[in-house]
Amino acid sequence: MSVRYGLLALLRDHGPQSRAQLAGRLQVPRPRVLAELDRLTAAGTIVEAGPTASRGGRRSTLVKLDPGLRFAAIDLDARAVGVEVTDGCLRTVASHSEHCDIRTGPETVLGRVTQILDKIRAEGRFTRLDAIGIGLPGPVSFRDGIPVSPPLMPGWDRHPVRDVLSGEHGCPVAVDNDVNVMTLGERHSGVARTVDNLIFVKIGSGIGCGVQIDGRVYRGATGCAGDIGHIQVDGDGPVCLCGNAGCLEAHFSREALTRHAESAADGDRSPVLAERLAAKGSLTARDVADGAAAGDAVCIGIVRAGGRRVGQVLAGLVSFMNPSMIVIGGDLADLGHILLAELRSVVYQRSLPLATGDLPIVLSELGARAGVVGAAVLASELAYGGPAG
Amino acid sequence: MSVRYGLLALLRDHGPQSRAQLAGRLQVPRPRVLAELDRLTAAGTIVEAGPTASRGGRRSTLVKLDPGLRFAAIDLDARAVGVEVTDGCLRTVASHSEHCDIRTGPETVLGRVTQILDKIRAEGRFTRLDAIGIGLPGPVSFRDGIPVSPPLMPGWDRHPVRDVLSGEHGCPVAVDNDVNVMTLGERHSGVARTVDNLIFVKIGSGIGCGVQIDGRVYRGATGCAGDIGHIQVDGDGPVCLCGNAGCLEAHFSREALTRHAESAADGDRSPVLAERLAAKGSLTARDVADGAAAGDAVCIGIVRAGGRRVGQVLAGLVSFMNPSMIVIGGDLADLGHILLAELRSVVYQRSLPLATGDLPIVLSELGARAGVVGAAVLASELAYGGPAG
Repeated sequence: MSVRYGLLALLRDHGPQSRAQLAGRLQVPRPRVLAELDRLTAAGTIVEAGPTASRGGRRSTLVKLDPGLRFAAIDLDARAVGVEVTDGCLRTVASHSEHCDIRTGPETVLGRVTQILDKIRAEGRFTRLDAIGIGLPGPVSFRDGIPVSPPLMPGWDRHPVRDVLSGEHGCPVAVDNDVNVMTLGERHSGVARTVDNLIFVKIGSGIGCGVQIDGRVYRGATGCAGDIGHIQVDGDGPVCLCGNAGCLEAHFSREALTRHAESAADGDRSPVLAERLAAKGSLTARDVADGAAAGDAVCIGIVRAGGRRVGQVLAGLVSFMNPSMIVIGGDLADLGHILLAELRSVVYQRSLPLATGDLPIVLSELGARAGVVGAAVLASELAYGGPAG
Repeated sequence: MSVRYGLLALLRDHGPQSRAQLAGRLQVPRPRVLAELDRLTAAGTIVEAGPTASRGGRRSTLVKLDPGLRFAAIDLDARAVGVEVTDGCLRTVASHSEHCDIRTGPETVLGRVTQILDKIRAEGRFTRLDAIGIGLPGPVSFRDGIPVSPPLMPGWDRHPVRDVLSGEHGCPVAVDNDVNVMTLGERHSGVARTVDNLIFVKIGSGIGCGVQIDGRVYRGATGCAGDIGHIQVDGDGPVCLCGNAGCLEAHFSREALTRHAESAADGDRSPVLAERLAAKGSLTARDVADGAAAGDAVCIGIVRAGGRRVGQVLAGLVSFMNPSMIVIGGDLADLGHILLAELRSVVYQRSLPLATGDLPIVLSELGARAGVVGAAVLASELAYGGPAG
């Protein structure tokens, strides 16, 4: 990690500090720290922030990030867009979210993102952006800043998302897969702070995971690491959209859950679900979660079966990767503790004791905000010269 | 990576070079390289090696590693010990291997290792060792240099292997798990040279894998990454020694293979195996390999079934890790191309095309030498201040 990034990340995450504090925390020779601080001051990236609190001795001066720094964080999913503008410390200065169908294509969706940002600018929340971070719900070539054959995003394949946004807003842009971005968010300011070897599992319309190793996003040889939704959990299982049988996603995802729930309602096995289906005409994961919370045996059974399948895959990954923590996020994390209990029981039973002894398996702390928080972290790493790459 | 290690690794892997060549290859400012070379020369670690070949201009001087540098590489497995002494470039100057039952305990086995090294010393092959690298067939705490609850090594739990050998031979010692060591060997001078994200699978008395990420051994949160032998491949499968059902190892390992082969011989399903069993009283993996090579359908079937199970696990790991290469090693790699073909077909069918598009799945090039070659690399990384840690 560069001295520059080390300093800026400390100021981002811990606020104003003295030069001596920064040098001490970075464990870099003081002259190098002071030289870098001088460069950052000359460039206007950091400014003086008044004297330290007196402790009797000579008082020194605090430095802080330029209060005018602005990042835009964009979280696109299949059906919504979330936009936040933050300052250099990633504090929200403006936010907006709305329904947005990603299938309307990149011109429409990115055009709308630009309108939202222009409106925030017109409200006086920023004059210029220092960087943009954006997460997309599909495979992304991080190096090229483009989506690559994203199954849920017709019309987006190889669309130059980075270059379009960069041209539009005159700042550098980092584009990443939504799960990697959520993982970044959860590690920066969620439940996984200071966790080095992390698996973040997103359960939503599909199942994917973000992997961090030594505190950095691990992308794999061709950028598709973490694509666990098509791991086979049952050779005789249902046929998946990918053409193979028994994929994890075919057993458990927003769609699979809805299917199981509607079939239970139709078969009159669950009065709770049957009543809701009659009232609304369709069911969602939320209905199953509510039914399970209310003690409906069928709903609990559906959630447990899903948790077992996810646990089965995670048990293998735990043996292989020996992570320090697993975080469960995405819409279906709403299924909460019944899901978590089942998943934990499979992992703890099936993986090596040495690998599970100290292994927390927990729900995301940031929930629906993980994506936008992570996108802001991504933007800051780009602007500060940090480790996302 | 430090400049010191960078220089020593270049001299280890590419032989004598001029200072200018070293500076060019390292991409470090020339004054830093020259200063480090001066320090290494003063310490006697490198020496001058005569002038470069003339290319018309001014001739410069080559430097090389001190020809007196010596590393000991020790490869312990359940039934044998291999010892090599190498020079600083990892060229073998002496080697010895013999039968050795690891269950006789650490005093006996390490005592024998020391006798072998003393004998090599007495033959004049070295006067002192600069470092020792040793691989053990079980879980190892790399930091502490001790085996931790190794199932195949009664009496070895927490035995201070590093400190014992270090005290005995007066040099630093690095202790690692045998699969990690083989992975290191295969990446340094086998089929996986220059491969950054690597899975090396050892199939022998059990199944384990070594993982390298960005060219470094990945150990995981508690040092047990790669322990894939107990990943479940069949919920209704045979009960494993670990107590769970359907573990990969319970389906395919030296023991499982022998069991399948003897049962096929007893049931008279395979004339080849029945004949060998009658002649020898027992069967080994070699008999199955020979039978398969000779076209015996039962032997081919046994190998294919094993390949399918290993492939099933690897398919999941490929989706998760998106490696750049998979290498198959260990005794059972002798089963060769029938095993490989089956395993490949499962992985290529089950994993994401983006992850398998450029993914070579190949047999180990170093074969039985992977362990001792890797142990020498481990020793050199320790002595040169390199990345193994």
